[in-house]
Amino acid sequence: MKGKVYLVGAGPGDPDLLTVKALRLLRSADAVLYDDLVAPEVLNLISPAAQLHNVGKRCGKKRILQDEINFLMIALAESGLQVVRLKSGDPMIFGRAGEEIEFLRRAGIPYEIVPGVTSALGAAAAAHIPLTYRRVSSALVLLTAHQAAGREAANWSRLAGSGSTLVIYMPGKNYEEISTKLTKAGLAPETPCAIISRASTAQQRIHRTAVRELRSAPHLPAPTLLVVGEVVRFADDSIARFFVPAPSDGQVAMSPLLAELGLPMNPSGDEEPLA
Amino acid sequence: MKGKVYLVGAGPGDPDLLTVKALRLLRSADAVLYDDLVAPEVLNLISPAAQLHNVGKRCGKKRILQDEINFLMIALAESGLQVVRLKSGDPMIFGRAGEEIEFLRRAGIPYEIVPGVTSALGAAAAAHIPLTYRRVSSALVLLTAHQAAGREAANWSRLAGSGSTLVIYMPGKNYEEISTKLTKAGLAPETPCAIISRASTAQQRIHRTAVRELRSAPHLPAPTLLVVGEVVRFADDSIARFFVPAPSDGQVAMSPLLAELGLPMNPSGDEEPLA
Repeated sequence: MKGKVYLVGAGPGDPDLLTVKALRLLRSADAVLYDDLVAPEVLNLISPAAQLHNVGKRCGKKRILQDEINFLMIALAESGLQVVRLKSGDPMIFGRAGEEIEFLRRAGIPYEIVPGVTSALGAAAAAHIPLTYRRVSSALVLLTAHQAAGREAANWSRLAGSGSTLVIYMPGKNYEEISTKLTKAGLAPETPCAIISRASTAQQRIHRTAVRELRSAPHLPAPTLLVVGEVVRFADDSIARFFVPAPSDGQVAMSPLLAELGLPMNPSGDEEPLA
Repeated sequence: MKGKVYLVGAGPGDPDLLTVKALRLLRSADAVLYDDLVAPEVLNLISPAAQLHNVGKRCGKKRILQDEINFLMIALAESGLQVVRLKSGDPMIFGRAGEEIEFLRRAGIPYEIVPGVTSALGAAAAAHIPLTYRRVSSALVLLTAHQAAGREAANWSRLAGSGSTLVIYMPGKNYEEISTKLTKAGLAPETPCAIISRASTAQQRIHRTAVRELRSAPHLPAPTLLVVGEVVRFADDSIARFFVPAPSDGQVAMSPLLAELGLPMNPSGDEEPLA
């Protein structure tokens, strides 16, 4: 009897932000293949009876080829096991799920995709940044700091300069380069940014800065995310440069944010549909 | 004693895709204010002891002003209640959380944001569409079909024409207009699209089409999402034009998708960091 592979989003880090379905699968899986970026707090929830395989391949420390991951996944499923392929955030964004799905289809292995809270949303919730805000930003762009040459680089620049909120996944450590690219794409030097490290976990840190000062930003522990755009002005004023959150404490001070952006408190437009 | 307001993402529809935290809050809340787009299956999980307030304001059927929602939320919290403000998907994307947060800050009400699985991710998981895929699309753009004139319209067009995967929230019923806008933005008429209705619920339907044929697409029940881009070719081949999913059945046929896109099965690049 064939097993099945579940491509599961582990969410941003806090185990409470797993979906109900992901939690159930982690507790009942026969085998779990996980990436380095999955939070230890999440891994602790996996059934002690399950086989655990770290298939992370970050920073050249370890070199597991994508093919090896694919073959391992298939071998385990063919031996009848229920396999969870666990990816941080959501599997369908920057998680190479496409390649793994293709492989599973070719091998005729049953599979299912379980979406998760992607890191951008975990970070936005933690830093109190609404990613879209009428008249400030009506679109959200998710991209990575990596880019190839040619057409891809041109697209990156076009997206970055669109005036939308940007969330840059895996920004790496070369903030100087990112700052230069953002400036070349047309962003004003004073455009606000936030670097969010280990969003939603007890180790969460948030550093607020601007495109101009990004080059001197501290290197916070991975995983980090960089949010760029005017909406970052809405971030909780009580969030200091190195903010370590009190657990579940949303208490905040009054803030003159709308005034700062030159917006009326309650712009007309109440008839627009809600998302 | 003051209560607290939780701005909570209800996820795409399937109650199993609520976060563990959202489920716990729904079960213990004293009052829940919810939008029309929240799935009934999710509302069923709310504690029977809780006050329920439908603050939806879709399609002009009902006119609740944003101010009325804000004042109700604050009045309930000031009377000491634990209030859940429940929004479909994630609260920080197209959910007007910014305005509500601003109001809560001004009123000095403690609040917390609980992220959710945004509809784009629920839909991508359901239709088996990897939203990013190396060498096909390295960025994801989330936007709505609405746009004002001027600068905002120019940005919409720039984003749509960037070559990235687009997910259009609240596409409405005027597919002809969207098709025209996409074509004007430079998309090829054969660019694949998928309309996903009530993603992740028992009523889920998926209609696959292309920019050219979008104008004759059926009007599926809200909430719907429109995914546009080459990655839509990866959607499960077994998903028919009107696909109603068998529960938890990820069984699929072999598919020649990579070949279709002219990509090798396992492109080199294994040293790139994973998301």
